Amino acid sequence: MEYSSINKINCQLGTERSVIREIFEYGNMRASQVGRENVFDFSLGNPAVRTPKCIDDSIVRLVSDSNFNVHGYTSAQGAFEVRRSIAKSISDRFSVNAAADDIYVTCGAAASLTITLNALCNSGDRVIAFAPYFPEYKVFSNGAGAEFESVEADTEKFQINFDGFEKALTPNTKAVIVNSPNNPSGAVLTEKTIIRMCEMLREYSKRFKHPIYIISDEPYRELVYDGIDVAYIPKYYDDTIVCYSYSKSLSLAGERIGYIFVSPKVNNAKEVYAAICGAGRKLGFVCAPALMQYAISENPGCVCDISQYKLNRDLLYGALTEYGYSCVHPDGAFYLFVKSPVADAVRFCELAKKYDLLLVPSDSFGCKGYMRVSYCVDTDMIRRALPLFKKLIDNL
Amino acid sequence: MEYSSINKINCQLGTERSVIREIFEYGNMRASQVGRENVFDFSLGNPAVRTPKCIDDSIVRLVSDSNFNVHGYTSAQGAFEVRRSIAKSISDRFSVNAAADDIYVTCGAAASLTITLNALCNSGDRVIAFAPYFPEYKVFSNGAGAEFESVEADTEKFQINFDGFEKALTPNTKAVIVNSPNNPSGAVLTEKTIIRMCEMLREYSKRFKHPIYIISDEPYRELVYDGIDVAYIPKYYDDTIVCYSYSKSLSLAGERIGYIFVSPKVNNAKEVYAAICGAGRKLGFVCAPALMQYAISENPGCVCDISQYKLNRDLLYGALTEYGYSCVHPDGAFYLFVKSPVADAVRFCELAKKYDLLLVPSDSFGCKGYMRVSYCVDTDMIRRALPLFKKLIDNL
Repeated sequence: MEYSSINKINCQLGTERSVIREIFEYGNMRASQVGRENVFDFSLGNPAVRTPKCIDDSIVRLVSDSNFNVHGYTSAQGAFEVRRSIAKSISDRFSVNAAADDIYVTCGAAASLTITLNALCNSGDRVIAFAPYFPEYKVFSNGAGAEFESVEADTEKFQINFDGFEKALTPNTKAVIVNSPNNPSGAVLTEKTIIRMCEMLREYSKRFKHPIYIISDEPYRELVYDGIDVAYIPKYYDDTIVCYSYSKSLSLAGERIGYIFVSPKVNNAKEVYAAICGAGRKLGFVCAPALMQYAISENPGCVCDISQYKLNRDLLYGALTEYGYSCVHPDGAFYLFVKSPVADAVRFCELAKKYDLLLVPSDSFGCKGYMRVSYCVDTDMIRRALPLFKKLIDNL
Repeated sequence: MEYSSINKINCQLGTERSVIREIFEYGNMRASQVGRENVFDFSLGNPAVRTPKCIDDSIVRLVSDSNFNVHGYTSAQGAFEVRRSIAKSISDRFSVNAAADDIYVTCGAAASLTITLNALCNSGDRVIAFAPYFPEYKVFSNGAGAEFESVEADTEKFQINFDGFEKALTPNTKAVIVNSPNNPSGAVLTEKTIIRMCEMLREYSKRFKHPIYIISDEPYRELVYDGIDVAYIPKYYDDTIVCYSYSKSLSLAGERIGYIFVSPKVNNAKEVYAAICGAGRKLGFVCAPALMQYAISENPGCVCDISQYKLNRDLLYGALTEYGYSCVHPDGAFYLFVKSPVADAVRFCELAKKYDLLLVPSDSFGCKGYMRVSYCVDTDMIRRALPLFKKLIDNL
């Protein structure tokens, strides 16, 4: 029998070699050869800091409450009391007006993004992101029928390359994805950068006679160090949709819990919210995991202990720059974005493997010549890895 | 500023009046007027039986284990040990060969369906379901780029109308969704029906020179009464993909946990599985909720106590048929599909509202002239509602 064509695009998406996954599997293979303690895996983004006790306490209390059907369906946009709690927390922290009906609770950041992109985009629309960017932005944009375009990186400070940005704006531009603090660079956009970006977008929205939306992807919002402030974009730009996740702030990456906040200042906000409800329905989300909805809403403003990440960052940044590596000082997230000492970062990461240092070359982030070094790892592993980082650069 | 077109289809999907939701809101309004105990809501599908204690015990134990990162990312297709546990349970119960790599763990039945449909379908493909059917099948099929076609109901026994089925099969038919036990009819397909359906599909697959897949949507598999056997379709038809959810069997509807089983006998099973991985990625699922993955895998074969559903079914079926209502005896799920005593079921459901009986007219299930009466409710509410069901039909 001849083979019927299944969906080739999805087949390819499921088959293509993921750089990070291959590193992960290589790490497991090496661990079986030389012992787990001798493999130094800096490729992961799985939070290393424990989930705050208050969350696990809430989970235990919720499942023990025989008067409450904690595992039942909630409404599609999230339980009302959960949305009210999230809206209050946003209003309190950022001095914006957020109501329960502006919030749509999601199965994490990826769901926030695919739902928002499907709600906004029609075939032929364009979505812009600034390099270096999370590679799935392209997959999610294409999945929503849009074309994806990246703006070349500002490699000096990992802010925004405004010349490139202005060139990328076309009448088909539907949305710009902003990710601050940034994966993979760790950079936080300054208020000055954001004001300039918003001015440019207002100008071009007017010129093109339709809003260009900002999709603010903020899973790392709370992971900033030294008291750095992360500007809240809805305060600077009306047509902003915030995509949030508790994956990093509460170390709940596997639980898939986050939300979309449609700023009430968005043009036709109620229609945008309705399109979000419709996109969530079409994609098959039904509702966000119920137990996690209640657990996070019982603990507004709770954040995991990020002092370990700060310790790791300072340790790794201090040592690597001392050894001669070049790296912009990261204010947030849990990644160092280190310039490859040789032009080809893929080749350098291969060299690093000889020391059992596992790093991610930056090519898939749309910005060649760097390595992403994740520091959401045990501090002890960093300490043991430092002499190897030194040998690696000294022996080039 | 002129309004930029957001995605109109999704906007409409999020705006359109949901019959069940309107009934729910009407019920809340009436409850505030006459008291919750005087409103008899038979419109819901939220499991009324408590989640088995073993699941909640697992949850408590898992979050209390400080040596295990229970909330971290799992691999996209599900944690390996979870997939192994599910595969073993399938192999043991149904005498088929299922391996961990044939299982893709999902965020519940809707996700299982949207991922499978996106994996299989290309634009212009057709997906068939038998009326009465779960209305979201159409939304999910269209969302995957396919056309949806329903086969008129066999209203005698709610098996399959084979004449209508044969007419619906075209060279563009990519898949048939089978839902046994059925929402809304409660019918279970007999082995005889399944054998005949599979023979017809084999014949037409051969004629059209490509496989026609069966998507077996089985969230109600374990909710059957009187020892009825629910045939496992992968044993009868090679090109079968099972979409399962623990929503009903473990009363975890809000937690979004289920799986896809790609039978290893499926034509090019590895490519189909890859397309499923790709579709899950594109739609933004990342992984199924981690804590729930581990909790269900620790308790293979566990099912909630369905004796309350059986009690409810017997009570309601016995009384309604005694009062003069007509209804096929349902072998499974938790719905009675009652013939409307007047031709227009929507009108009859309006009449029922005068007695504060909330029923769902069957129009949205693709089969007019019936009401869905959900019995996943308190038995006591049924007892108190019975005299009203009698008055309703007596006073016509």
